[in-house]
Amino acid sequence: MGDTYSIGVDLGGTNLRVASYSGGVEFLESTTIPTRLSTGRERVISDLCEAVHELTANQKGHRQLVGVGIGSPGPLELPEGILRNPPNLPGWDGFDVRRAIESKLGMSIEIECDANLAALAEQKLGAGKSYGVDSLCVLTLGTGVGSGLILDGEIWHGSTGMGGEAGHIVVCEHGNRCGCGGYGCLEQYASATAVVRMANKLMPEYSSASAHEIALLAQDGDARAKKVYEQVGQALAVGLTGLINTLNLPLYLLGGGVCEAWDLFAPSMFAVLRQRSYVYRLTEPVSVQVESLERHKTHILRAQLGPAAGLLGACLLPYQKTATKILTTEKELAHQ
Amino acid sequence: MGDTYSIGVDLGGTNLRVASYSGGVEFLESTTIPTRLSTGRERVISDLCEAVHELTANQKGHRQLVGVGIGSPGPLELPEGILRNPPNLPGWDGFDVRRAIESKLGMSIEIECDANLAALAEQKLGAGKSYGVDSLCVLTLGTGVGSGLILDGEIWHGSTGMGGEAGHIVVCEHGNRCGCGGYGCLEQYASATAVVRMANKLMPEYSSASAHEIALLAQDGDARAKKVYEQVGQALAVGLTGLINTLNLPLYLLGGGVCEAWDLFAPSMFAVLRQRSYVYRLTEPVSVQVESLERHKTHILRAQLGPAAGLLGACLLPYQKTATKILTTEKELAHQ
Repeated sequence: MGDTYSIGVDLGGTNLRVASYSGGVEFLESTTIPTRLSTGRERVISDLCEAVHELTANQKGHRQLVGVGIGSPGPLELPEGILRNPPNLPGWDGFDVRRAIESKLGMSIEIECDANLAALAEQKLGAGKSYGVDSLCVLTLGTGVGSGLILDGEIWHGSTGMGGEAGHIVVCEHGNRCGCGGYGCLEQYASATAVVRMANKLMPEYSSASAHEIALLAQDGDARAKKVYEQVGQALAVGLTGLINTLNLPLYLLGGGVCEAWDLFAPSMFAVLRQRSYVYRLTEPVSVQVESLERHKTHILRAQLGPAAGLLGACLLPYQKTATKILTTEKELAHQ
Repeated sequence: MGDTYSIGVDLGGTNLRVASYSGGVEFLESTTIPTRLSTGRERVISDLCEAVHELTANQKGHRQLVGVGIGSPGPLELPEGILRNPPNLPGWDGFDVRRAIESKLGMSIEIECDANLAALAEQKLGAGKSYGVDSLCVLTLGTGVGSGLILDGEIWHGSTGMGGEAGHIVVCEHGNRCGCGGYGCLEQYASATAVVRMANKLMPEYSSASAHEIALLAQDGDARAKKVYEQVGQALAVGLTGLINTLNLPLYLLGGGVCEAWDLFAPSMFAVLRQRSYVYRLTEPVSVQVESLERHKTHILRAQLGPAAGLLGACLLPYQKTATKILTTEKELAHQ
């Protein structure tokens, strides 16, 4: 990427994170400012664009700007870039984020759903790079369950930009009501929020405990806390069964805070997966090597990039689009 | 396709169907012979190759053979072409079908899972062609629930050839044992076999009724028979929720015998889908026009090709591979 750089933005409901980037897994520079939702969306977009301008000013004369990539909460309608009732940006329903940013910045941008960008970063710079895998699915077990799908090295965002939402696969038919309006979604059984809810039921005396504290209790041998994480593993297995039988990818990555309890949920996850998914049974790896994956096998591993994955993905996006454009031009030349 | 033709084979557990093909939705010639499983797999492969030779002999001097495409029951490991414990071909576990056919025919073949080929045919010659859609998922509700996934005009068979098996998404967490070894798979609630099983429970006096007869009872107003098909619709909605939220495709097609009861299961399917899938709610079409699909919407329609879809897909396969090869060559040229 040499003498070029990109700007990435992670437009979160709490914070706006903006970074300049020129390759690798580190930013050239990064800044975090609060998302002032109460001041209105136009003001938030102004703050965002100001931060972008500051970072580009610092690179002026040194590197050439390839483009600006924005990671937005979903649901985001693409290619337009219009928000559709986003739970993390209340009041932004129908807002044309792309147009708002482009008109303020005076240049065209690339925009994607944030969970898809985290998956892109994992494929280009994290586990996908380490293992040479170009198709994978990332499930980020945080407050919710974010998810992104990379097929053949490209984000699969579906026909309207809303693809990749595996956190809303149904894992419990008559299960808990989900924020998405559905019932029994994976998010209701494998997020940090779900861990707390399930623990409240089984161990009401720890009603103020966080997912982290429940993990500590489980590690100390508390049978009910262990049961909570076993349920997480079972729910993940049911969701992964659908993904594995439908997509047959070589790699599924689990990230997010809940993964610190990997050892607590992984045994039940793998046990139930073996039972439920015949594709997994036929493709279970003998072991997981640090250096390489087994050919023709289905691997479920921890994601390698941390919370910066989404912002890294936003920085990668302009480079991705450039790569596509170059390819298109070559194809066009071939037809002349 | 003009002066060329292909041979397609549908290697079923009951019948071997072989056809020659030169474009359109009709075969040049086709033949069906029983799959003599009891005589052993080598003999079945001999029968298959003999039938292929007969059809090629009839085209000699008229058209040039592009290739031979084989549709095989799954699970089929690709690119090798090795069967992995196929329920419809007992005793064929580990059999290298590709090698067996290629050595007998003396030429290389293309091989794919039969459900994926039915989906390919629907995309190239059926609903995908009618509506100009290049990504779709087909669910064939027959004895089981077959399924295939076409993304950007190509079969998505996953990293080992076992992708596209959406019939084995879990729709009922503690549900019926499935032939795949799992529990509560879509196939257990939306196949003709499932209709009969569910009817047996609700209306034991009709224990010998077929799915077709149960549909007739429902159409005559039998409340329990109607309930059975409502359950089919609900199960389809749970499975489709996972597919729609994860893949966000423009088109999902339902085919197979159970679809004759479309009017019986579609209302509950759409009602539950609206409730469960936020992506569907955000992308529900206003109406379905015969001529065109609505842009940015999710359509669930009946498949257009009948039971010959799989064999048509097998015939298309050699043309697909040729197209890919030509494209590759152009790319190679562009890089010189």
